[in-house]
Amino acid sequence: MTIADRWLLPDGMDEVLPPQASRMEELRRTLLDLYYCWGYDLVMPPPVEFLDSLLTGTGTDLDLQTFKLTDQLTGRMMGATADVTPQVARMDAHSMRRQGPVRLCYCTNVLRAQADQNQGGRSPVQVGVELFGHAGLEADSEIIHLAISSLTAAGADEIHLALGHIGIYRSLVEAAGLDDDQEAAIFDALALKSPGMLAEHVNDSVKDPALASMFNALVELHGDISILDQARHLFAGAPPRVSAALDELRALYEGIRVRYDVELYLDLAELRGYQYHTGMMFAAYAPGYGQALAKGGRYDDTGRAFGRARPATGFSMDLKQLASLAPAAAAKGAIWAPAQEDEALNQAIATLRERGERVIQALPGQDTGPAAHSCDRHLELIDGRWQPTTLADETRA
Amino acid sequence: MTIADRWLLPDGMDEVLPPQASRMEELRRTLLDLYYCWGYDLVMPPPVEFLDSLLTGTGTDLDLQTFKLTDQLTGRMMGATADVTPQVARMDAHSMRRQGPVRLCYCTNVLRAQADQNQGGRSPVQVGVELFGHAGLEADSEIIHLAISSLTAAGADEIHLALGHIGIYRSLVEAAGLDDDQEAAIFDALALKSPGMLAEHVNDSVKDPALASMFNALVELHGDISILDQARHLFAGAPPRVSAALDELRALYEGIRVRYDVELYLDLAELRGYQYHTGMMFAAYAPGYGQALAKGGRYDDTGRAFGRARPATGFSMDLKQLASLAPAAAAKGAIWAPAQEDEALNQAIATLRERGERVIQALPGQDTGPAAHSCDRHLELIDGRWQPTTLADETRA
Repeated sequence: MTIADRWLLPDGMDEVLPPQASRMEELRRTLLDLYYCWGYDLVMPPPVEFLDSLLTGTGTDLDLQTFKLTDQLTGRMMGATADVTPQVARMDAHSMRRQGPVRLCYCTNVLRAQADQNQGGRSPVQVGVELFGHAGLEADSEIIHLAISSLTAAGADEIHLALGHIGIYRSLVEAAGLDDDQEAAIFDALALKSPGMLAEHVNDSVKDPALASMFNALVELHGDISILDQARHLFAGAPPRVSAALDELRALYEGIRVRYDVELYLDLAELRGYQYHTGMMFAAYAPGYGQALAKGGRYDDTGRAFGRARPATGFSMDLKQLASLAPAAAAKGAIWAPAQEDEALNQAIATLRERGERVIQALPGQDTGPAAHSCDRHLELIDGRWQPTTLADETRA
Repeated sequence: MTIADRWLLPDGMDEVLPPQASRMEELRRTLLDLYYCWGYDLVMPPPVEFLDSLLTGTGTDLDLQTFKLTDQLTGRMMGATADVTPQVARMDAHSMRRQGPVRLCYCTNVLRAQADQNQGGRSPVQVGVELFGHAGLEADSEIIHLAISSLTAAGADEIHLALGHIGIYRSLVEAAGLDDDQEAAIFDALALKSPGMLAEHVNDSVKDPALASMFNALVELHGDISILDQARHLFAGAPPRVSAALDELRALYEGIRVRYDVELYLDLAELRGYQYHTGMMFAAYAPGYGQALAKGGRYDDTGRAFGRARPATGFSMDLKQLASLAPAAAAKGAIWAPAQEDEALNQAIATLRERGERVIQALPGQDTGPAAHSCDRHLELIDGRWQPTTLADETRA
C-alpha cells in the first residue's frame, strides 16, 4: 500500500486538530457546567454493550446505525453505542433506581455505521440531558429551555425551533389498526413530506374515510400557532389522545413564545429521529445549518424492558457540529522560556504555570522560535530575576 | 430473554455513575489544563480508522487488541482505536506537519478486544501527551515530569517509577541475528521474568557465548543505580548502542532523583507495553495498584509509514483507573427551589445559576424533597425577595 492510502480516514470518521479540539473542550465544559447548575448529574455509559440491551425498544433505525462486534470472551454479539439516550434510560431504570425525578447528562463519543443525514458524520460526540420520572409539561419545558441555552452558549445568534408531537400520528395508526408494513409505508411518506405518496398509501391501508382524511391532513399541518386551530377542527373525530396532544403543543408553544427569543414553528408530521419517542418532539436549527443542531422529545417507558417504566424527556446534540457554530477563540498568548538548566528559571516557569500561564520551554538545539509556537512573551533574566517580557515583533521569529 | 439478562454489561465495558463520573470530569480538566500550561495542544483522533493505517508499525499486540469493523461504505476493514499513541504520531506526521518540536495531548475513549492485564478494563479513557521532533533526553525528562505531575494531581501520595531502555534488548537481538520466532520466545521469557525459560531459549538460539550471557544477565538487572555499573561490566563487549543506552538511563535516573520525591527503580528487562518503543521506557506505580498507572517511553520514527520519520516520546494513562486513586470530593451543596411559576422566582434562580450555584427546581407533584437531591439550602420568599436559606435538618427530608 502507498503512503497516500495510509493517510485516508474512513468517510465521516474525522480527526479534530488544534485549535478546533480546544474549542470543543471549552464548549464541553460550558455545557456540562450549565447542566450541573440545573441539577443534572454526569454519567458515562459504556461504549459497547450486548446488542440485546442496546437495541431493546429502540426500533430498526438504530439497529441499522449500530456497528456490530463479536465479544471474544462470550461469543455474544455486542454493539457500539450509536445513541446514548436508551443507555441512559437503562442506567436510570436499573443501575441508579433513585426515587423521584432524576436528571442526568452525558458527553461521549458514539459511532454510527452509516452517515446520518440529520446529524453529520459517523463519529459524533453526543452531548445531552435526560430527565426521568416526571410526565408533566414542566419537565418538557425545562428540557427545551436547556436546548435553547445550549445553542446560545455555543454561539447561535438566531434559533429556529420546530415542535411536533408523535402522539397524534401514533393515535391515528392505532385507530386505523395498521400492520407494521402499512405503518412503515405511511411513516416514510410523511417523513419525505410527500402528499402524493402519502395519499396513495393511505388509500391502500386506511379503510375509514374520516381517519384517511386525518392522515392526509398531517402532512399539511405545519406553520404557526394557527395550525393548532385547523388541527382541532380536522381532528374533531379523532381519539381523545390527539386532542390532549394538541393541548400540550399549545401550552408548550405559548410558554416558549413568552420566554425565549426564538423562531417557533409547529409541524405535526415531524417524525424525525429514532423511533422511541412517545410525546412532544422538537428540533432546533440555526441559519446556515440544514441539519438540526439539537433534537429531543419525550420517550416514556423505555426503561420498561429493564424492569422500571418511567416518564422520560430529553435532548441531544453533536458537540463537533455545535463547536463549528462559532470560531475558536484566539489563543491566549504563551511565554517562551530558553532551553537552559537553571534552578531559578525552573522555579520561575513553575510559578507562572501555577498561575495558569502557558509556558513553552525550548528544547536544546531546536530550530523554531517563539513565533512558531504562538508565544507573545519570553522569559528574560533582568536584574537577576527571570521575568516575562513582551516580544518585539522582529524578535519573535 | 429475561430482564436480568438485559442488565448485564460485557466484561470490562463499564458504565460510570455519579459521583464517579464527575470525579473523572474534574480530573480530565485538571490534566488537560496542566498539559495546556506546558504548551501541549489538544487533539481528537478519530475513534475508527482503516486497519492499514491504524496498525502500521505497531506490532501484533495491538492487532489482537483491536476490534475489527467492516466499513459498509467501502467494504474495507476498519479498527476501533485501542491505543491513541500511533494515531497521534500519524497526525503529527501527516495532518499537522508543523516544524520543530510539537507537543500534543488527548483524552479519549478507546476500546480493547481483550482485557489488558496491565491497564484494567476493555473501555479505558486514554489520556496522555506526546512530544514529537526532539531526540534528546530533555524531551524524555519533560515527559517523565508530566507523568509524575499527573499522578500527583490525581492524588497519588507515593509514586514508584520503573525505568528501562528497550534499546539494550533490541541491540542484543540484532547482534545475535535472531529471527522473529527466536526473538518472540526470548521476549516472552523476559516479560515473564523467568530465568529458567530464558536460559533455555537463549541456549537454543544464541550461538555466541558472550551474547548469550548478556541475554541471560538482562533478567537479573533490576534495582537501584548500582545495576548500571554491573551492566557496564557485563555488557562491556556489547554493541555501542548498549553503552549509549546505559548512559541515557544514568542521566535520566540522576535527573529524576534530584528533582522528584519518587521511589526509583531500574529494570533492563522492562519490555511491557506495545511494541513500538525504541528507547527509554518507564512505568509509574502507586502502592495498592498492581498495574502501572502511567506508561510511556520513546518511540522514534513511527511516523515514517506516513511519510515523516520523527523522534517521539510520550506517555498515557487510563483516566478511569486514575480517578479511583482519590475519592470523589464531597458534592457542593445545592439549592432547592419550589415548583412554582413566578417571574421573580425564575429570575432569582437564573441569577444564582449564573453565579455557578446549583439550583434544582421541584417539578409539580414530585414526592421527593430537597434531601433526596442533596440540597442544603432552599429558596424562600422573605420580605418579598426570593433568598437561599439553610435548610434545618428536620425539614430537609
